[in-house]
Amino acid sequence: IINLYVGGGWNLSWSSRAAEEAEAVAAISCSGHGRAYLDGLVLDDEKQPLCECNTCYSGPDCSQFIPNCAADADEGDPLFLEPFWIQHAANSAVLVAGWHRMSYSYNDKTVISKVLEKHIRKLHSLVGNAVTEDRFIIFGTGSTQVISAAVHALSPDNASSPARVVASIPYYSLYREQTDYFESMHFKFEGDASPWINTTNTSSTNLIEFVTSPNNPDGQLNKAVLHGPYVKAIHDLAYYWPHFTPIPAPADEDLMTFTLSKLTGHAGTRFGWAVIKKKSVYERMTMHMELNTMGVSRDSQLRALKLLKVILEGKGREIFEFGYKTMKARWEILNQTLSLSNRFSLQKIPPQYCTFFQEFRESSPAYAWLKCEREEEKDCYAVLKAANIIGRRGYMFSAEDRYVRLSMIKSRDDFDALIERLKELVSEEESVVKGT
Amino acid sequence: IINLYVGGGWNLSWSSRAAEEAEAVAAISCSGHGRAYLDGLVLDDEKQPLCECNTCYSGPDCSQFIPNCAADADEGDPLFLEPFWIQHAANSAVLVAGWHRMSYSYNDKTVISKVLEKHIRKLHSLVGNAVTEDRFIIFGTGSTQVISAAVHALSPDNASSPARVVASIPYYSLYREQTDYFESMHFKFEGDASPWINTTNTSSTNLIEFVTSPNNPDGQLNKAVLHGPYVKAIHDLAYYWPHFTPIPAPADEDLMTFTLSKLTGHAGTRFGWAVIKKKSVYERMTMHMELNTMGVSRDSQLRALKLLKVILEGKGREIFEFGYKTMKARWEILNQTLSLSNRFSLQKIPPQYCTFFQEFRESSPAYAWLKCEREEEKDCYAVLKAANIIGRRGYMFSAEDRYVRLSMIKSRDDFDALIERLKELVSEEESVVKGT
Repeated sequence: IINLYVGGGWNLSWSSRAAEEAEAVAAISCSGHGRAYLDGLVLDDEKQPLCECNTCYSGPDCSQFIPNCAADADEGDPLFLEPFWIQHAANSAVLVAGWHRMSYSYNDKTVISKVLEKHIRKLHSLVGNAVTEDRFIIFGTGSTQVISAAVHALSPDNASSPARVVASIPYYSLYREQTDYFESMHFKFEGDASPWINTTNTSSTNLIEFVTSPNNPDGQLNKAVLHGPYVKAIHDLAYYWPHFTPIPAPADEDLMTFTLSKLTGHAGTRFGWAVIKKKSVYERMTMHMELNTMGVSRDSQLRALKLLKVILEGKGREIFEFGYKTMKARWEILNQTLSLSNRFSLQKIPPQYCTFFQEFRESSPAYAWLKCEREEEKDCYAVLKAANIIGRRGYMFSAEDRYVRLSMIKSRDDFDALIERLKELVSEEESVVKGT
Repeated sequence: IINLYVGGGWNLSWSSRAAEEAEAVAAISCSGHGRAYLDGLVLDDEKQPLCECNTCYSGPDCSQFIPNCAADADEGDPLFLEPFWIQHAANSAVLVAGWHRMSYSYNDKTVISKVLEKHIRKLHSLVGNAVTEDRFIIFGTGSTQVISAAVHALSPDNASSPARVVASIPYYSLYREQTDYFESMHFKFEGDASPWINTTNTSSTNLIEFVTSPNNPDGQLNKAVLHGPYVKAIHDLAYYWPHFTPIPAPADEDLMTFTLSKLTGHAGTRFGWAVIKKKSVYERMTMHMELNTMGVSRDSQLRALKLLKVILEGKGREIFEFGYKTMKARWEILNQTLSLSNRFSLQKIPPQYCTFFQEFRESSPAYAWLKCEREEEKDCYAVLKAANIIGRRGYMFSAEDRYVRLSMIKSRDDFDALIERLKELVSEEESVVKGT
């Protein structure tokens, strides 16, 4: 490998081909309604990857709007942050050499990059959303794997009956799906936390409570509802970032989980982490990661590091201003759109003082938790579906189907389509009112 | 983003910083006995990451040999392929844009890159080591996750007793460790397969047999030993590549697992896959990946794609010639080193016709399965340890401690140190013989 340092910069040698490939792909025009990727499909007679179009667009350059296409507000795909990374293209790109980190372990024989860990601690301290001093940190392949490891680690090894895993309704369905799937002699999903509230002092049942704050789906800053000698909690703080909520104080719980997905928007990188007080829990979760996947992809760790560096360079102001502004604007537009409706209502989240922005801030939730108010409209998902809107039914969150979750964190195109469809729905309502 | 195409190449804009960073790191000299990485530790008063030295070297540029340092032949860290990727620097580098694949899913709503899947099929067909036509392919975070998914998927849902997971001794310890850890109502690790050989026709116990070929630790081309209506098998073909074994014929089993780690040497990328005949098994394994980690890091998939492209460009000849030559030379040196010893012996693996190289080939195993031949030396690990060699004890493979596995796939420095220590051991033996 020959490198020449010429004047003010490197005269690139081995890396230039990869850089050129990436720029060529980035230069493919998809009309702002799609994107071409380095690993996209290439047709046999073409050299360049095809445009991958957003939901309501098609054509070779994604320029054709598909009329009457459904507005998809189902998934929590955090593409609202994509424009931020396009704006910070130069700082956020990573060139991975062919021989980068081939080994199973870093230099210290672990599967965790200590440099990345340090950056995570710095970020929490900057944002003020979690205490990390004297805490252990482990990584997982998305917070998906982290919460699974946490359930395993908090379950007693030698109890006569499995720990019951519970959460306050409405809750994120993965808790149920994942715990059911991995059910063992040590833990079992039980569902609603509320029946246990008055029993924790008298019963010796081991309980593991998922506490999600802000909550998915409804954005509330939940607190644990169960307390007692046999109760443990997993605090899922995926959304506890200034994009989505004022940060009243640093969280200081025994076990807190986070994910890159809802911080930088990189869901595809599959990177999550936990901040842990107890050494024994940390050790069990570390063992889980070793036996399940031998740790997290070193490529994901490299990418996460680069992204966190960009955030830290801007002292967090840039990305969180961008995220908050975007989410706040969307929430306002949605509220405005539904303001004349008697048929639909949205959750209310009180404003709070945000220690990061150092001012009172309105909420800017990741999801709308929409309620169909008409007595007869018990299946709110179907009501929206009929209006060409795909939400996620309340049932998925163990709540009434009178509720639907609408994702506000997808791409601009998805959000625009959602608002268009909702406007149509609300205007029908008005014309019916006027008609009577 | 502005891109200019000038003359014969791109005038790089946003990507050049990343490219320069990578080249600057690659240019750091670590004396050939270590390496600096983009995400390496940077001291406060320095700009560049520190050299990370190989086992027996130290100093800021890894130039200081540590006398009497232990030869570490424990882990199966496939660094023997690192020089290949350094030789192919230009082709194997990937530049990842900040906005690359942020979404949870690819364009087809799955978590699997169809382009990468196509390349994997092409590679198997080129090498001739596995039938993939009309088979399903799933990805995992290393074959570690793939085999765990396979055990879950092959276990009966509604049996009165759990499926017993077995393997022929000696076997890779992860099968036991992982299956024990995730033990459920559906499966349980049982250990040695041989007691079941004569029962499979009469008993209705569900059995899952791990068949590893070439076997870890001893390199033998194992076949399934259990057959019957209640028997299922997981064929772990991690080492079934021309680096390590002649390829007599394409494997055509119901469930076969592979890993990038032993193909390209990228253990850190955590990428494995399975080739599966039955749709129902494929669907269960897909569900496993979704609930466990929501699929494999898209960054790992991008990197795997790039590496496979390099292999396919060279029609596989380049990497497999390199891998075979390296492993074959090491095996010869090891055999030569021990040829005068009566105290230690190595496994024998018969030569076979290799359909990929189209000629008879000697074996070139990933591991030496060393036996201490002296009656009194029952703890072979301790014998080697006393001679400053770290192997992996037979017990770890559920075998006698008279055996030790020595890894031959680590870096050149590791292998050289191993041979040095072994030479000393064998020469002691000679001098004792001469002395009597």
